[in-house]
Amino acid sequence: MTEITRRSAIGTLAAGAALAAQPAFAAAPIVGKQAAGVYRNKIGDMEVTIVTDGARTFPMPDTFVRNVAKEEVGKTLEASAMSLARMTVPYNPMLINTGGKLVLVDTGNGEGDAKGEVGYLLPNMAAAGVDPKQVDVVVITHFHGDHITGLRRADGSLAFPNAEVKVPAAEWAFWMNDENMAKAPDAMKGAFANVRKAFDKMGDRLTHYEMDKEVAPGLTPFATHGHTPGHTSFTLQSGKDKLIIQSDVTNNPALFLRNPGWHVMYDMNPQQAEATRRAFFDRAAADKTLIAGFHYPFPSLGYVEKDGANNFRLVPASWQTKI
Amino acid sequence: MTEITRRSAIGTLAAGAALAAQPAFAAAPIVGKQAAGVYRNKIGDMEVTIVTDGARTFPMPDTFVRNVAKEEVGKTLEASAMSLARMTVPYNPMLINTGGKLVLVDTGNGEGDAKGEVGYLLPNMAAAGVDPKQVDVVVITHFHGDHITGLRRADGSLAFPNAEVKVPAAEWAFWMNDENMAKAPDAMKGAFANVRKAFDKMGDRLTHYEMDKEVAPGLTPFATHGHTPGHTSFTLQSGKDKLIIQSDVTNNPALFLRNPGWHVMYDMNPQQAEATRRAFFDRAAADKTLIAGFHYPFPSLGYVEKDGANNFRLVPASWQTKI
Repeated sequence: MTEITRRSAIGTLAAGAALAAQPAFAAAPIVGKQAAGVYRNKIGDMEVTIVTDGARTFPMPDTFVRNVAKEEVGKTLEASAMSLARMTVPYNPMLINTGGKLVLVDTGNGEGDAKGEVGYLLPNMAAAGVDPKQVDVVVITHFHGDHITGLRRADGSLAFPNAEVKVPAAEWAFWMNDENMAKAPDAMKGAFANVRKAFDKMGDRLTHYEMDKEVAPGLTPFATHGHTPGHTSFTLQSGKDKLIIQSDVTNNPALFLRNPGWHVMYDMNPQQAEATRRAFFDRAAADKTLIAGFHYPFPSLGYVEKDGANNFRLVPASWQTKI
Repeated sequence: MTEITRRSAIGTLAAGAALAAQPAFAAAPIVGKQAAGVYRNKIGDMEVTIVTDGARTFPMPDTFVRNVAKEEVGKTLEASAMSLARMTVPYNPMLINTGGKLVLVDTGNGEGDAKGEVGYLLPNMAAAGVDPKQVDVVVITHFHGDHITGLRRADGSLAFPNAEVKVPAAEWAFWMNDENMAKAPDAMKGAFANVRKAFDKMGDRLTHYEMDKEVAPGLTPFATHGHTPGHTSFTLQSGKDKLIIQSDVTNNPALFLRNPGWHVMYDMNPQQAEATRRAFFDRAAADKTLIAGFHYPFPSLGYVEKDGANNFRLVPASWQTKI
C-alpha cells in the first residue's frame, strides 16, 4: 500500500463505528522481518563473512543435556535469557574469501523450513552480494544435518554447482559404512539417510581430506573428534591473524562453554567430546584466539575466558562497523 | 570489474615477470566493508530497529576512568578483547515504529567522519528501507555530541525534515544557559557550542518534555540524571512487552556495567551518575528486563545479571532471525 492509500483508508475508517479498534498507520510501515544476518571480518588479507542460516527456538528436550538434571539446565538457561520452554540454537555457516578462492564452511539446514526459523543461508548470501555459483569450495566439518543439508536445494539440485566438496575422511568412513547404519539406533537412521541424500552422485567433485593438511589457502583442519567420529575444526591463518573455526566443539555456549562437562545429546562419544572440549577451550583461553562457533549467536565470533578452574565464558566480539 | 575482465587481467599478468608478487583473484571479490548494521526486534505490537552509527576504536585517554588506575582499566579491557591501545565505543541510535509514529531515539555523530568509523546512521536507515523524511519524532536523551550531532546533515540542513524534535526540559535548561557556558571549563565549551548549532532555528518543531509523561505512544521518559544534568532513559511498553532504553547510564558495558563504581570522564556529576547506575542495574537485574544501551556493542540489546554483590555483567540478547 502507498502512503496515500493508507491515509485514505484511515479517513474512511474515521467515519465508521470500528475506528476505536483500528490502529493508526505510521507513514513508515512495520517491516515484520529481520534484517539480513551478514557480518564481515578481516583475517589478515582474507575476508570472512558469517552468513547466518537462522536459529531455532524450541522447548528443551528432556535429555538435551544427558548427564545433568533438567532443573539445573533450566537455571543456566535463565541466566542467559532463555528457559526450558524457549531455548535457542543458532546456525552460522561462514564464507572465506582467501583472495584466490571463495570457500564455504558448512551449509546449514537447507531450504524449506515451514516455521521460517532456518534456511536463510542462500538469502543471506544474496544480501552479501554472493552468487552460489561463485563458491569454489565447500568444506564440511561433520555430517550432522544442520551442516550438510544445505548442500542441496529443496528440489535436490546442487546449491553450489561449481564447488568442490571436501569432507573429513574419518567422517566419511563412519557414516557411509552400511554396517554402522544397520546397527544404529532407530533415532539415528534418519541421519544416515540424510548423509546419503546430501552426498548422492557428487562424483569427482567430492574429495576426502585428512587432518593437518591445508584444504584451501590458510585453512588447515585439526581433529576435534567426539561430537562425531570425524568431527573437525579449522585454523584459518593469514599473515599474523588467526581464526579458529570450532564447529560443534560446543553446542550453545550458554550451556556447554560455561559447563564443558555437560554432554549435549548430539555428542556421539560424550567422554571423547568432553575431553576434546576441555583441551580446546583451555588452549583458546590461554591463547586469546578469536573463535567462530557454528552455534554461537550471530555473528558467532568471540573469545573464551576462564570462569573458575573448570568452566569458561564466551566474550562475544564487538561488532565492527569499519573493517 | 566483471569476472571476465579480471580473468583476462590474470591472463595478461601470467605473461609478465611480476606474476609471483601478484595475488590470484577470486571470482568473488573481497568486499572490504561491513554489512549494514540493522537489527529489528518486536516489542508487543511495535517494531524497534537498531540502526548503528558505527563504533570508534582509539587508545584510551589517561583519564577515561577518572577514579581508577589506568593499569587496572587495562586489565579489564583485556578481559573483553580490548586493550589500552585499542578501546572500542559503539554508538547505536534506535528507530521505534509504534504503528502510528516512527520515532528516532538519538541521532549519532553526524556525517563526515574522516576516519570512516562513525556516521553510518543515514546509510543504515537506507539499508533498513527508511527514508529520513518518514521520521515523525526525534527524541533526544541528552545533549552530548554523539547523540545530537546527527540532527543535521554535513551542510547544516535538517537530517529529519518532517520530524518534531523532543528534548528533556532539564537538559535544555542547563545547556542553553549562557552563564553555564561562560563558566564551563575550556574543554567543555565545544559541547555547548555544538548544542547551539544542533538546535539552531528549530522553531516550533522543538519541544521540551518532562519526566514520566509519554513523548510518543508507549514511550515514557524517566530521570537518570548524573551523566548530564537532564540525562533521560525511557520505558517502551507495548502489551506485555517492555524495553528499557538506558542511553548513557553506562558507557561501554565491559568497563562500567562490570564496575558501576567506575566514573567515565563524560559523567558530569560522577557521584550522582554512580548512584543512578547502581539503582538502575539493581532494578534491571531483578526484573530481567530487556535493555537497549546506546554504547553496547551492536545490536546493543541485552540483559543484566548480577556478578557478586556490587557488580554486573551484560548478557547480550541472542540475534533472532525470525521476529
